[in-house]
Amino acid sequence: MRLSRYFLPVLKETPAEAQIVSHRYMLRAGMIKQASAGIYSWLPLGFKVLRKIENIVHEEQQRAGHIPMLMPTLQSADLWRESGRYDAYGPEMLRIRDRHDRDMLYGPTNEELITDIFRSYVRSYKDLPLTLYHIQWKFRDEIRPRFGVMRGREFYMKDGYNFDLTKEDALHAYNRHLVSYLRTYERMGLQAIPMRADSGPIGGDNTHEFLVLAETGESEVFYDSQITDLKFGDRQIDYDSVDQCQAVLEEFTSRYARTDETHDEAVWAEVPEDRRRVARGIEVGQIFYFGTKYSDAMGATVQNAEGEQVPVHMGSHGIGVSRLLGAIIEASHDDKGIIWPEGVTPFHVGIVNLKQGDEEADAACQALYDSFTTLGLEPLYDDRNERAGGKFATMDLIGLPWRITVGPRGLKNGVVELTSRRTGESEEMPPEEAVKKVAAIYAAL
Amino acid sequence: MRLSRYFLPVLKETPAEAQIVSHRYMLRAGMIKQASAGIYSWLPLGFKVLRKIENIVHEEQQRAGHIPMLMPTLQSADLWRESGRYDAYGPEMLRIRDRHDRDMLYGPTNEELITDIFRSYVRSYKDLPLTLYHIQWKFRDEIRPRFGVMRGREFYMKDGYNFDLTKEDALHAYNRHLVSYLRTYERMGLQAIPMRADSGPIGGDNTHEFLVLAETGESEVFYDSQITDLKFGDRQIDYDSVDQCQAVLEEFTSRYARTDETHDEAVWAEVPEDRRRVARGIEVGQIFYFGTKYSDAMGATVQNAEGEQVPVHMGSHGIGVSRLLGAIIEASHDDKGIIWPEGVTPFHVGIVNLKQGDEEADAACQALYDSFTTLGLEPLYDDRNERAGGKFATMDLIGLPWRITVGPRGLKNGVVELTSRRTGESEEMPPEEAVKKVAAIYAAL
Repeated sequence: MRLSRYFLPVLKETPAEAQIVSHRYMLRAGMIKQASAGIYSWLPLGFKVLRKIENIVHEEQQRAGHIPMLMPTLQSADLWRESGRYDAYGPEMLRIRDRHDRDMLYGPTNEELITDIFRSYVRSYKDLPLTLYHIQWKFRDEIRPRFGVMRGREFYMKDGYNFDLTKEDALHAYNRHLVSYLRTYERMGLQAIPMRADSGPIGGDNTHEFLVLAETGESEVFYDSQITDLKFGDRQIDYDSVDQCQAVLEEFTSRYARTDETHDEAVWAEVPEDRRRVARGIEVGQIFYFGTKYSDAMGATVQNAEGEQVPVHMGSHGIGVSRLLGAIIEASHDDKGIIWPEGVTPFHVGIVNLKQGDEEADAACQALYDSFTTLGLEPLYDDRNERAGGKFATMDLIGLPWRITVGPRGLKNGVVELTSRRTGESEEMPPEEAVKKVAAIYAAL
Repeated sequence: MRLSRYFLPVLKETPAEAQIVSHRYMLRAGMIKQASAGIYSWLPLGFKVLRKIENIVHEEQQRAGHIPMLMPTLQSADLWRESGRYDAYGPEMLRIRDRHDRDMLYGPTNEELITDIFRSYVRSYKDLPLTLYHIQWKFRDEIRPRFGVMRGREFYMKDGYNFDLTKEDALHAYNRHLVSYLRTYERMGLQAIPMRADSGPIGGDNTHEFLVLAETGESEVFYDSQITDLKFGDRQIDYDSVDQCQAVLEEFTSRYARTDETHDEAVWAEVPEDRRRVARGIEVGQIFYFGTKYSDAMGATVQNAEGEQVPVHMGSHGIGVSRLLGAIIEASHDDKGIIWPEGVTPFHVGIVNLKQGDEEADAACQALYDSFTTLGLEPLYDDRNERAGGKFATMDLIGLPWRITVGPRGLKNGVVELTSRRTGESEEMPPEEAVKKVAAIYAAL
């Protein structure tokens, strides 16, 4: 993309309403614009990152054997009356009346709707196991929306639901989700720690939250420092293997890691003192096993091998897709702006032309642009007639991990400058080498 | 995907509520399930096609230089009061009150919101031309939703908005959209004819609707038969070229083609009688140029080269993404089921194992499956322990364009059977040749 043809409305001033760094940078980098309280338009740069995150979630869910579908944003109140949650859910639920005076609601979650789909079609244990998921906009009418997309009212979320014949099978589905979530977050450059959590209105005993450590996190967290040494890495997992998934669960959840909601001083005291860490964390996902709570209430049964009708065991599993943009920025920035991890960066590389209009500089930039495009990478080429300082400030603010600076002086020596956004280190090299180096970094992802 | 691990709840019976063929087949093929009146869940097969269509729209919009973003589903009523449409819009607008008693609405379209974004950031003619678009769920509270996704209440739509300094520039944007729409529909296997239309509540004089001919279309259409001979084909268009885009507009709109709303008997009479056709059509898109209607009302101005503040010229351009599934099925089916055009088919090829459990047949199917997957194609492998008749009926119903049938008898002669869903013709050949043939068809798209 050439910047002269893009829509990237960066702001010089820091918006007064933004209290945390991710909100500030998303506004300043022209990623979002508030449409109304807690509701945002995703400007082109923000939308690009949102799609990258969404795609990673899709890929990892499907790798785990989960099947994508899509439920609507608006739901009938009737199903929620069946589960008993229509009255139980507080004023966070946006209740709507349509022109025929039917009670509707903007879905905050989808246990009822997915259970209704399941019971409409599935009759036999032979059709299990089954995990369906979708990524859809949801709405929670927060009384005080704040922190930008971190605590918005309209938010984008992946929610998945497993249906299994037995508790044992459902716990394997739970573990499978835990494994796939670890992979998912790592691909986004995040370390998200599974912590024992409270189940809240979803119900159930088995639940873990995934928290990203960040000073601005809404939860206080207590953990054994050994946990931050764990990496999922590129290990190959057979998602059908009960043992393999169970082993990952044990590895990643056997050490103490809890939020303030489940913190237990007695257990905490058993962690060696030099390994005890108290910090703050941002919740970016949660997994639940809640057994037959919804299948009992809504009659979602299957016939088992003995010919008996039994309620299915279920769980639900969420990833906060839009909130992840905020979490990633909270975890990865400096005082100049965002530092995107390579896995989610909106453009792979920035090209800064120090002397727009100079024949050689223009041609060299165009050649770089074409090389990257041919390789399937997306460059953002700042081809505006602006001063170098302004161009660098914009690139630093929007946080592309790699920048190539092209100027007449370097070109005389046959070199351009490749700069890492994270370290700030620059290196001079011939243009073709810079292309090769950047391409190799993305190829290794 | 192996069918035994997929969720494809096909129905044997025809649902009573479905009046038109696309609705019937989408229900029977397990593509959608009604969640409430005019609101659908997209089951896995339906969601796959929806995403394919969405991706084609994204690709063609970006090819034309239009910039993707995303606006929220819920909007504040305030902006609609500014444009005067809050009161003008009838009961189709779903009005909502949040917990703070603020008036909100579920966006049926986005002229106000995009104009607000534009006026917040853009100050100078130097930032023009600009075309922003998004693909988002919208809501129109139809009094009698029917025909499945063809006339639902919650629907998925691409809407794009151009901002230009002059009427002339805006008309080029209009033409650019027309060209990109022709390409878009052809990639989906559709012939969509641009017809002069009424602007309705959007406003403006220049507007064309794109109609797909189908017996079940909601509009009566009148056209010169020469128009159906036109093909966009694989011509290369420079979307920046005013002349090239104008030439396409003239080629595709100079012959008589109108809906009943704009039909003019006097002009119609000038069409040679043997070329006059009266038929029915399904609207799948519409483009508008409406000048300064919204920029005047909402103060969206830029400074021109002379330093004066002038309102921008705008247009809006929509493609009914979810409705397109219905339109494609209406235009492409037979009495056995859907016939997907290759460009949008949910799976590229079906593999039917005639004797599940037979060692050779299983191995041959698995080898085919692996070959396609390696080539980046998605097979659907019916690995269930069912009779051949049932497997064929399912494949015909869900409409994959190509099917490979594998059985012990053929394998003894080293062959499998490749069948075209459209023609019903089958040909025996070695498995590797079938893979090569199918791969070549998709590579040519």
